[in-house]
Amino acid sequence: RAQVRAFLERRAVQRAIITVIVVNAVTIGAETSATLMKNAGGLLVTIDHVALAVFTVELALRLYAYGREFFKDPWNWFDAVIVLVSLIPASGPTSILRALRILRALRLISAVPSMRRVVHALLAAVPGMASIMGLLVLLIYIAAVIATKLFGEIMPERFDELPRSLFTLFQIMTGDDWGNVAQEVMQHKPWAWIFFIAYILMSTFVALNLFIAVVVNAMNE
Amino acid sequence: RAQVRAFLERRAVQRAIITVIVVNAVTIGAETSATLMKNAGGLLVTIDHVALAVFTVELALRLYAYGREFFKDPWNWFDAVIVLVSLIPASGPTSILRALRILRALRLISAVPSMRRVVHALLAAVPGMASIMGLLVLLIYIAAVIATKLFGEIMPERFDELPRSLFTLFQIMTGDDWGNVAQEVMQHKPWAWIFFIAYILMSTFVALNLFIAVVVNAMNE
Amino acid sequence: RAQVRAFLERRAVQRAIITVIVVNAVTIGAETSATLMKNAGGLLVTIDHVALAVFTVELALRLYAYGREFFKDPWNWFDAVIVLVSLIPASGPTSILRALRILRALRLISAVPSMRRVVHALLAAVPGMASIMGLLVLLIYIAAVIATKLFGEIMPERFDELPRSLFTLFQIMTGDDWGNVAQEVMQHKPWAWIFFIAYILMSTFVALNLFIAVVVNAMNE
Amino acid sequence: RAQVRAFLERRAVQRAIITVIVVNAVTIGAETSATLMKNAGGLLVTIDHVALAVFTVELALRLYAYGREFFKDPWNWFDAVIVLVSLIPASGPTSILRALRILRALRLISAVPSMRRVVHALLAAVPGMASIMGLLVLLIYIAAVIATKLFGEIMPERFDELPRSLFTLFQIMTGDDWGNVAQEVMQHKPWAWIFFIAYILMSTFVALNLFIAVVVNAMNE
Ligand code: NA
Ligand code: NA
Repeated sequence: RAQVRAFLERRAVQRAIITVIVVNAVTIGAETSATLMKNAGGLLVTIDHVALAVFTVELALRLYAYGREFFKDPWNWFDAVIVLVSLIPASGPTSILRALRILRALRLISAVPSMRRVVHALLAAVPGMASIMGLLVLLIYIAAVIATKLFGEIMPERFDELPRSLFTLFQIMTGDDWGNVAQEVMQHKPWAWIFFIAYILMSTFVALNLFIAVVVNAMNE
Repeated sequence: RAQVRAFLERRAVQRAIITVIVVNAVTIGAETSATLMKNAGGLLVTIDHVALAVFTVELALRLYAYGREFFKDPWNWFDAVIVLVSLIPASGPTSILRALRILRALRLISAVPSMRRVVHALLAAVPGMASIMGLLVLLIYIAAVIATKLFGEIMPERFDELPRSLFTLFQIMTGDDWGNVAQEVMQHKPWAWIFFIAYILMSTFVALNLFIAVVVNAMNE
Repeated sequence: RAQVRAFLERRAVQRAIITVIVVNAVTIGAETSATLMKNAGGLLVTIDHVALAVFTVELALRLYAYGREFFKDPWNWFDAVIVLVSLIPASGPTSILRALRILRALRLISAVPSMRRVVHALLAAVPGMASIMGLLVLLIYIAAVIATKLFGEIMPERFDELPRSLFTLFQIMTGDDWGNVAQEVMQHKPWAWIFFIAYILMSTFVALNLFIAVVVNAMNE
Repeated sequence: RAQVRAFLERRAVQRAIITVIVVNAVTIGAETSATLMKNAGGLLVTIDHVALAVFTVELALRLYAYGREFFKDPWNWFDAVIVLVSLIPASGPTSILRALRILRALRLISAVPSMRRVVHALLAAVPGMASIMGLLVLLIYIAAVIATKLFGEIMPERFDELPRSLFTLFQIMTGDDWGNVAQEVMQHKPWAWIFFIAYILMSTFVALNLFIAVVVNAMNE
């Protein structure tokens, strides 16, 4: 066991794994090209199988080498889930499952220490954002219910049902094309600018404070 | 009285209230769906009435339990206004009043302590922003008067009257679709880029300093 | 003189001036409305004349009261220029001069101490931005020359001459509608994405550092 | 040698060089105008040749004056590359090479000390951004592979091949026109909002942290 562990922790082995991850990410990307599939499809598929085999063996070795300890590191769970999902036979044209194979490239995060650290830092910022995020979700939800009731009949392509209103209001919060939506509604309900401007000011203000919370947290560390 | 107070301050009671708020927010949202109203309309309306009854009783109990103290906490005013408005009979198709029923979901803010704190922090940032906000409003107002006079006849759908110009300039400040507006004006008044670029630079610069004021205030706390 | 000075520095007088500024800003705005001009045009014009008279008298009094000292405060220059420009008879349909009358509302800044302070703070931030601003201007200029030469014939409505390219690249820097411009160019020159993405990354990065410079300066104070 | 060095380091000489750079940048810009070329083309081309001669002589003098030391300063390399590229005879209509002549204006950066410092500061921020940049690139790449597979047939003008998907997803990350892209995809795959909203939230969150990393680094200095 100690030998397997030492083997897995060798720099050369870890670099080899990283190389396989990158090569595999490139070949999965290349498979989206019809031209490349026609000319080198066999090679791409072979590389894909080999890479998956390498990942499976490496995972099995890690499991053997670390035993119970293996399950204490959430990154191991992360790798295990990614590899196991890849092993599900995507028989039939289950396009989503095939499309998600590229998620294997996420193993790059667990394999490169500096990326792990970045993701740790990102995740550490999440709890401090929970309350403000909740407030933002509440704001969007309330605005969506109001918009559905008031504008649903005027502009059904944007506000006919709650889910579509939620989407539209998320889009408006990002500032994309909101002027056109508002102007079309205002042709029927001229006072609608109150709704849109109040919503933009409030959602921007809350998002700004979400941002400040993240910055202040980052600085306190 | 002390007993009622103790009852209201029990964790289980507070959680129950939060649950009622959330369930009621969901049912008011569900009422916007024609399908759901056809299949489960009676249930949704009943839940709505029960929830309103719960809120009214809880408010009355709080008023009884705390007496005069009740009016010292602005959050109690907040809750009272929301509940009282909900009690106004929305007879007739007063669609706005019915649409605003979802504002009841705002009670979630007063009921969840961490959300209260976030809103306190947001409101605490407002006074420090007053002067810069005033400057921003002044800037938009001046730009709107100028735009109405200079571009009103060229592009009446954007600048025919002061209110519309104010809306358009708010939209331009958010960066939405300003290039098209400017280019259409420039077809008639080629020097109009001076106006638009000056306005964007100034409003962005003031907004940036508004943002900095908020950050600096947040950090000083 | 001391008496005039004391008079001008009375709170009541200063508030009266602020009121006149605000009322005048509102009436100049109201003059843009054809309806209001038809119904109350005479009143609006009268208020405008009275306001201008008040400003002129106040300026003359200040000049008398403070003598040479008057010219030491840049805000006095600011007020003097605004009032003098307003006194130029806008005979004939010199629409720009008439449109700029609303700049009189800027006197609100010099009249309200907290707004003065905000503008002082804004202006104090400018020198620290000079070098980065220079770099940003250089970047936009270089990109505009390249775009004019490479894309001028493909998309003359965006890049036919240097001034239009400068405008288009400023628009792209603000993120407005850049995808459509880039895609249209890419139909003829498929490698054009290199230009657009490099330009966006560089201009955003420089703008971000401009922003950081302002924040860091603000915090050091 | 010491004399040549002293000459090159004179303020007057350095200012003269800066003037030549600025004049040359203006003439290269002026050359894009057909009108100016017709009326003053000869003059513009002559100024261009003179400027290039000045740059070449100055570079040769610096090389002579500083000897080996010359190559220790990366800014000298920068200047040398720019001048040497300009000397390549752009015979034939190699439009890109001619368009890139304006890059000579970049010499302004090496010639003005405060601009050098700004660029140093910008470059100093890059290493601290490497890991987060890597994560952002990984995120865009994975999203592009998924989008190509899932949406390639629905919206070939946006997602037909990996390069176009990468471009589209970069555009979406900047918030430009993403709502329309998403809505068109959603007409065929109604669940596609999950993909777009997840992508926007994740890429914005990573970009925000990239931004914070730059700010925190800048503040620690
Ligand atoms: Na936009
Ligand atoms: Na847009």
